Formats: sequence, C-alpha cells, structure tokens
Amino acid sequence: MLIRLGYDIQFDVPAPLAYVAQLRVHPSRTADLREPDQLHVESDGGEVATHEYSDMYGNICTRFYAPRGRLKLWNSTLIEDSGLLDPVARDAREIAPQDLPDEILRYLLASRYCEVDLLSPIAVDLFGHISPGWNRVEAICSWVNSKVTFNYNFARPTKTALDVFTERIGVCRDFQHLAVTFCRCLNIPARYVAGYLGDIGVPVNGPMDFSAWFEAYLDGRWWTFDARHKHPRIGRVLMAVGRDASDVAITTSFGIANLTNFSVISDEVPAETTAGFKS
Amino acid sequence: MLIRLGYDIQFDVPAPLAYVAQLRVHPSRTADLREPDQLHVESDGGEVATHEYSDMYGNICTRFYAPRGRLKLWNSTLIEDSGLLDPVARDAREIAPQDLPDEILRYLLASRYCEVDLLSPIAVDLFGHISPGWNRVEAICSWVNSKVTFNYNFARPTKTALDVFTERIGVCRDFQHLAVTFCRCLNIPARYVAGYLGDIGVPVNGPMDFSAWFEAYLDGRWWTFDARHKHPRIGRVLMAVGRDASDVAITTSFGIANLTNFSVISDEVPAETTAGFKS
Amino acid sequence: MLIRLGYDIQFDVPAPLAYVAQLRVHPSRTADLREPDQLHVESDGGEVATHEYSDMYGNICTRFYAPRGRLKLWNSTLIEDSGLLDPVARDAREIAPQDLPDEILRYLLASRYCEVDLLSPIAVDLFGHISPGWNRVEAICSWVNSKVTFNYNFARPTKTALDVFTERIGVCRDFQHLAVTFCRCLNIPARYVAGYLGDIGVPVNGPMDFSAWFEAYLDGRWWTFDARHKHPRIGRVLMAVGRDASDVAITTSFGIANLTNFSVISDEVPAETTAGFKS
Amino acid sequence: MLIRLGYDIQFDVPAPLAYVAQLRVHPSRTADLREPDQLHVESDGGEVATHEYSDMYGNICTRFYAPRGRLKLWNSTLIEDSGLLDPVARDAREIAPQDLPDEILRYLLASRYCEVDLLSPIAVDLFGHISPGWNRVEAICSWVNSKVTFNYNFARPTKTALDVFTERIGVCRDFQHLAVTFCRCLNIPARYVAGYLGDIGVPVNGPMDFSAWFEAYLDGRWWTFDARHKHPRIGRVLMAVGRDASDVAITTSFGIANLTNFSVISDEVPAETTAGFKS
Repeated sequence: MLIRLGYDIQFDVPAPLAYVAQLRVHPSRTADLREPDQLHVESDGGEVATHEYSDMYGNICTRFYAPRGRLKLWNSTLIEDSGLLDPVARDAREIAPQDLPDEILRYLLASRYCEVDLLSPIAVDLFGHISPGWNRVEAICSWVNSKVTFNYNFARPTKTALDVFTERIGVCRDFQHLAVTFCRCLNIPARYVAGYLGDIGVPVNGPMDFSAWFEAYLDGRWWTFDARHKHPRIGRVLMAVGRDASDVAITTSFGIANLTNFSVISDEVPAETTAGFKS
Repeated sequence: MLIRLGYDIQFDVPAPLAYVAQLRVHPSRTADLREPDQLHVESDGGEVATHEYSDMYGNICTRFYAPRGRLKLWNSTLIEDSGLLDPVARDAREIAPQDLPDEILRYLLASRYCEVDLLSPIAVDLFGHISPGWNRVEAICSWVNSKVTFNYNFARPTKTALDVFTERIGVCRDFQHLAVTFCRCLNIPARYVAGYLGDIGVPVNGPMDFSAWFEAYLDGRWWTFDARHKHPRIGRVLMAVGRDASDVAITTSFGIANLTNFSVISDEVPAETTAGFKS
Repeated sequence: MLIRLGYDIQFDVPAPLAYVAQLRVHPSRTADLREPDQLHVESDGGEVATHEYSDMYGNICTRFYAPRGRLKLWNSTLIEDSGLLDPVARDAREIAPQDLPDEILRYLLASRYCEVDLLSPIAVDLFGHISPGWNRVEAICSWVNSKVTFNYNFARPTKTALDVFTERIGVCRDFQHLAVTFCRCLNIPARYVAGYLGDIGVPVNGPMDFSAWFEAYLDGRWWTFDARHKHPRIGRVLMAVGRDASDVAITTSFGIANLTNFSVISDEVPAETTAGFKS
Repeated sequence: MLIRLGYDIQFDVPAPLAYVAQLRVHPSRTADLREPDQLHVESDGGEVATHEYSDMYGNICTRFYAPRGRLKLWNSTLIEDSGLLDPVARDAREIAPQDLPDEILRYLLASRYCEVDLLSPIAVDLFGHISPGWNRVEAICSWVNSKVTFNYNFARPTKTALDVFTERIGVCRDFQHLAVTFCRCLNIPARYVAGYLGDIGVPVNGPMDFSAWFEAYLDGRWWTFDARHKHPRIGRVLMAVGRDASDVAITTSFGIANLTNFSVISDEVPAETTAGFKS
C-alpha cells in the first residue's frame, strides 16, 4: 500500500526565533520512502537555513532560525506500507529487568509526564495480579481506553499521567502517557510515539492530525500499542519516539509564535496518484 | 591535592534483584584517578557478575543481579584534584538557543522533577529582568539559597521543583532541581550532577554523604553551580549528570531491598596516605 | 436603577437525582427585590417539591429531588440597584488577626481551591513589601489581572489557585481563587462570591453568564473586588459567598445530569418594563 | 471509667502573636467532665486575656494575643467515659443525598486536603461495587489501613488525600484524609475529628499525642471510624470536628512561634486519683 504523507503548518512569527522540529519520518521507516521526505521551511522574511541532527533517542530533528514574518513548514512524501493491521503477538513475554538490553533501561524511568514514582502502587493494585506479557499490556490499554474519555476541550500542555488518572478526560497524548506510565511501573519498558495515523479502514470524523501512540518492549522488540483506539489500525508511520511528549514535540519554538494553520494528510493512494501539499 | 574517595553501602536483599548503580567516577575525571575506581559488589548469597555500560548522558552505569542475602557495594580510590575552588567566570555569556550545540538542547527540556512548563512564567517574573550571563545564574542560586531551608526531615523521593518552590524546604537535591528548572525556563541549559563533595576547607557537621549540585552551560562549556552551598567549594568529584535525579540515582533496584549501611568518604590525604574502605 | 434578573437552566436527567441549587439572591439583597425571587423547578417527569435552607455561610440553598426527564430551573425577578460603580475606599485599613471578629476568621483558612499553605511564601515575596490596606488588595488584583489570561477553553473544575499561578490562564473563577488565596496568605480575610453581573456600562461580547468575584474584609466590612475585570462595575447582585467555588455552586447534582440549556439575564430595565424568562 | 486528660504545650514567641486554639473538649462531651476543662494560657511576657467562641462546626475555639516570651498552654481535666470499645453497627445504612439533613450536606463537599473531585472515579473503581452501608465504610478503612504505611518521618502539613493515595505513607491525619475523601466520593458524609486517644487496652509505643480519626454519617447519626488503627479502641475524647485538618488545628498562630514542648496525657485513672499537668 502507498500512503501519501504531508503537512502544512504555518506560524506568524513576531520576532526572530529558534525552532526545533521533529517532522521527519523516523529512520526505521526511511527504507520505505518512495519520495524524498523533506521538511520545507519557508518564510516571507527571507531564506531559512536548516540543520539536521539525531537526538538521544535517534529521532531526526531539524533546527532553524525563523525570521520575523509568516513561517510555513510543509512536506509531501510517499511511503510504502504493509497495509496490515498493527501486529498482535499474544504470547510475547515480558523481559525481566536484569535481562533487558542496556539501551532499553531508560524506558523504565520516570519522566515529566510519566510519574512512575507516584503511580507505581496504583499500577500494582490494578495490574499486578494479571499474568505478565502481551496480555498485561493489553489490559492496561483496555483499562485506560474504558476509563478515560476523549475530549479535545480538555487538552492542556501540562497534563501528566497522574492528572489523566484523576481527571479521566483528555486527548490521545494523555491516553498514552497514562498507559506508558503503568507499563513502566510494572517494569515493562514503554516509550511514547508520535507519527502519522490516517483513517485507513476506519470511519472518519473531523480533520486529520498527527497522532500519538506508544510502544512496549516485549520479547526483545518494540510493539505498537494504542490506549486511545480500541482496535488495531492500518498505516501508522512513526516520526519520533521518547520517554514522553516533552521529548517528542512536532515543533519547539524558543519564544512566541502564533499558529495560523495546521493541516496534515495521511491517505492511502492508488499507486499512480501523487497529490499532496505543495509549496 | 589527593582525595581519598570511597563508600560502603549495604542492603539486605530478601529476594534476587536487578540493580543499576551509578557509582563510578565520571569519564571526565578518569584521567585524574591515581588508583583504580572499581565498584566492588559482594554478596553472602554468592558471586555477583557485573556489567558496565554508558547511558545516554555518558555516565558509567554498573548492572548486576543481586542474590538473596547481604549485599555490599564498596569502593576505595584516590584522585588528584586541582585543590582549587569552583571556578568563577563573571563575564561568561548565555548562548542563544539557535547557537547551542545540538547535544546541549536536551538540557532545556522539562523532566520529571523539573517542570519547566509550569515554572516558566515564575522564572521570567523573578529573573527575566536580570542581565543574561553568569550573573543571572548566580542570582538564581542566591534566590534559591536564601528562600529554601535545608532540612533532612523534609526529603521525599517524589518532590519536584514546583514542590520546592511552594514548600521552601528540602535537601541538596531539591535546591538543585529548583535552580536547574529556573535556568531552563530562561533558556539556559542546565543539568543535575551527583558526585563526591567532602568538607575540604569548610567546617564539618555530621557524616559525609554524596552530594548534588548542578551545571549551567555558558560560553560554550559547563560550569559548576550549587544552589545549596553559598560559597565556592574545593574537591567536587563528578560521578553522573542528567536532566534530573530520575536520570542520576546512586542505585536503582527493581524490587525491594533494605538499606542497612551507608557511608561515604571524600577526604584530602597527604600524598603518602592511602587508607580507605576495604573489603 | 432596576435590573431584570433571571435564568433558564435545563438538564436531561437520566435517573432520579438529588440537587442542591444556590440560585437565590443573597439575603443581604432581599430588601432590594421588587418582585419575588423564586427558583421555579419544573420537570416533565412530574411535580418537584423544593425545600430551602441556609448553609453555614448564610446562603439560601434549594434542595429537590429531580425525577427522570427534562428538568428546568428558571427565575425572573426585578431588583433595585444603586446604579453606582463598585465602591472604592483607598484608606480602608487591614485589621490585624487578633482584632478580627470571630466569624471572619474562617476566611483566612485554606480551602479546596485556595491553597493558602502552598502559596504563602509566594504571596509574601510578591506583596509582603506593599503597605497594608486597600492598596495591597488592589495590587493583588492588578497582578492577577495582568498575569493571567482569560480563556474559556482552559476552564476545568479541578483547577486550583496554584494551578492558576503556574498556568496563567483561566476563567473568572480562576482569577478570583488566586486573588483570594493571596489575600488570605497575607492575613486579609477574603471570600469567593458568585452572582449576577450584567454588562451595564461596558461593551458586551458574547452571551451573559453568572460571574464570580471576591470580597476582602477591610476596616470592619466586606468590600467588592474583582481580579478578572480591571475596572469597577455597575450592577453586581450577590447570590452566594463561601471559602471558594466548592462552597458556591450554581447547582450540585448527586449523580449524572446533562446540561442542555444555560441562559442568564441581568439587564437594566426602564422602570415600566418587566420582561424576563417565563415558564 | 475515668480518664485524666491534659497537655502541656509550650512555644517561644519572638514577637506578639494572635492565636486560635482548639484545645477544649467538644460540647458533645461536656456533660461527661468531672473537673473543669480549662485552657490555661500563661506567658512570662505578661497576662494573657482569652476569649472563647464557637466556630461554624460547633467547636469551642479559644483566641488570645500572646506577648513576646515563653508561652505555655496547659490543661488537666477528668472525664467519665463508657470504657467501651468504639461502637459497631454492621447494619447501619447509608442515607441517600436527598434524605440527608441540611446541615450534613457540607460533609459531602471537597475541602483543602480532601479532593473529592479528583478522587471520585478512583473511589468508584475501588468501592463502587461494595454494598452500601457500614460494611462499605469499613472496607474503605481496611483498604487505607492496609495500603498506607505509618511513618512519622513522612508527615508534612501540605499533604492531601491524593498525595496519600500516591505516596502511601504518612501519619494518622493522612490516613483519615484519604478515608474521609473516599467516603464523600461515594456520597457518604464524613468528617475529620481530632481528640484525645490514650493507650487504654493496647500496647504502648512512644509518647502520647493527640490523635485524628473520622466520623461517617450512617442511619441518622455520626459513627467513629479510624483508618489508622485496625481495631476498635477505648477512650476517645472528641475535641473538634471539621471538613479536614485545615478546619481542625490544635493551635493556629498568625506569625512565627517555635514549639519547645509538646506533651499530652490521656490515661485511665482509678476513681480516687487526680494527678495531671499543673502550672
């Protein structure tokens, strides 16, 4: 299956401003790209030089210094996807902490929006009795999915997993933060993921957006889980991973900028079609 | 100056347990060692194999799986130190976000105990009007030092920078978390540091311990700051750095263990003396 | 001046439900009423008996048990108002705690949304140096008004004064909670107020609503303050007072009900006009 | 049974200070007193006039203005007690909100240390399925008692029910705050209680202190519950009730004073003995 990916994000920048964007497809999917995946940065204030680097989680970050004026970040690319639903491995086992690879241990720690220290006794009460493995991560997802209500009007940038646990309302990021935290509380490595998630195979409501899901480490590899959506999905394209949303931000600006446009596409296309965002 | 470093940390381990320890001198100080810096892990429950790796901040971490029984972690080493007070560079400048090296950007982000998102308007109110550079970081340290009271009885592992800001009481870790957060709020990269800090040149009260301080990035390098101690000190030996205390833990055990002994030494020694902790 | 007051609040009640409403004009304004102030409770599920009582702050509360069905709470009354702006008394003095009347002391304590214990050092830092009296309460209002941004999209029922202090965004209730807390931190009794506040003398934007303001106790009486609105207003009609919004709720239902209509009027009327909400 | 009650509480008062004390036996126990229950206020800075009033919960409060110097609050009185264990009424029923007396409704609301709004979904998850009545309140007490660890070193004045729920450690006040909150979340009126609780019938460890317990309203009256102590006790003497510890404080001082002595007695005495604290 071919998926057309793209975005058109615009800001009004009142004074020159440093930016870091995580708007590239993740290196793990680079081989699947059928067109270049390029973050175009345009400003009516002049040329913008960009610089790429890899952060400590292996995400591709793009830095630039935006002049005063209208700033536009856009992309249009094409990726090949298996077209399969998220894989399910009911017999995938948890790995004991002493057997985890060194570089996985970081995903057991507390982070800004995942208060492992505060939620551990709660996680043990709720999920400690469930047999370890795939089934337990799925139980966490089901619990979060059934207890938390999705509502765009109750998003806020400072909301943590504990806030989600008490308020029981939020957006996709909030669902994943709570599930990620519960996993870590039980010594299951879990990481927050941002990426493209279109509406392939599901009824649509509302405009497309980027999405957040999470990955749990079982049986020696990362598996996709999503505490927001009850059913497996088709067509996720990973952009960035991290301990939580503070590590994974579409854009970070070091100062004030006003968002004036935000549109994303992630659509299955017949092989011969290539329409997307253009400059 | 030669400094004898060492520790003797003991646990009662009721059931086999995975451990990660950050008990090695930081790679930046390896060249100064005059004796091997080795974490000895001993258990009356049998041999303990250890494995070392470098975490994403460059700290040396030691992993091992402790059997049931009495566990002892000890070390005795000797390091050469300049014997100088913490350096002061009153004209060191802040670096604008767009000019920071890529690998320094992570030290501007929010983390578990440093809620940059929550404390930013407060930091701007308190320190936004102070001229940027060394002087501003020092103003942050002075503010924290004068407003927060040191008290061992008000330590708790879940205390965050915002808690410190409201409760105004805590231990060295708490002072540094608040100062680190204020720095990041003002776009000054700051990182939390754990290490040895003896009583060289200061009056002693109570037993020695490891200490926490912090580093701010000014003029292209990291500088030592300490919001807990008002005056520059002699003889800091860095062990680990990170975004906050959740990245920097003397020991992390994945399960229950009871601390039964905790002693640290960090003493100036005449060149011919070598007494320290022994097995 | 005559002011037409009224409301039409409707709920869909899926199962019989106990309610407490604070929808009557406060006893301190009863003498000004020119028409009966009656909370009409109507349900298509049958007759609803109501019962009134006075809570521990002297507010008139109405209790009833709503049957399943469409519930409508409405009122239309007429009140005489001075037509004057909120009084200003620049030389009103603070009263020392030892000189406060017994029944005023409760308004110095911490409450659900006013964490006096957490915000005291902050209040002292910000306002401790300002000379006591009217001027200091006004300084608190100005600070809150200038630092907090009004935005309906960032309301939530669990938001406390400390949340407002860190998030710097909210609705009228949030502004008052922060100002009330700061007053109490400085030993100035302060209470949260809900009431009618129309648009007399100010440009209108959007539909009318109830409003929250607060009162501070200076020179032996309560004075109106409003951290949300920068300028004195005409036509406030007090409904209920308390330590914070948990004491003062338009309606409290002990179970689930869905709000289907909410409209309020508070309009100056020529003496001969009497139009309002009708059954 | 006769119980000797008393205390000797001393402060060093650096500057004149207003105080409110809740150190009298509650009016519900006045008839049981066999000696006068008098709060003696003595200062080496001069005579101290005291004034008594009843707060909005019916507690006897004593106000005074303490001069600079050593302040001593003491009392010795004798009370007759049934000598019976806390009553148990396994068939006491919950009263639906619509049937509660007006003056009981306040004990369903959120308060400073009892975040009913935040803990409601949690309470419903944990206790919603348990059949209503005595048994459910007891289930709450058992849960809190088994999940929270008592530790004097983890007391702090700002700790709320939610903090107790996450940290799982604290002192008697903390146990009761969490249990009180859970009750209110389930629409069971509950109030926080402070009083004398000696060691009659139990093994002693450590010095005596005042204690906190709570009361739940079932079947038309208040019943004693105690989430801290697993078993019914003998000899509780109620001093003050309120929504939580912010309403019930042994002493509140409006400024700085240093506690220099704190001793309490609450001992069964043979009828002929009367020894207690003396001036």
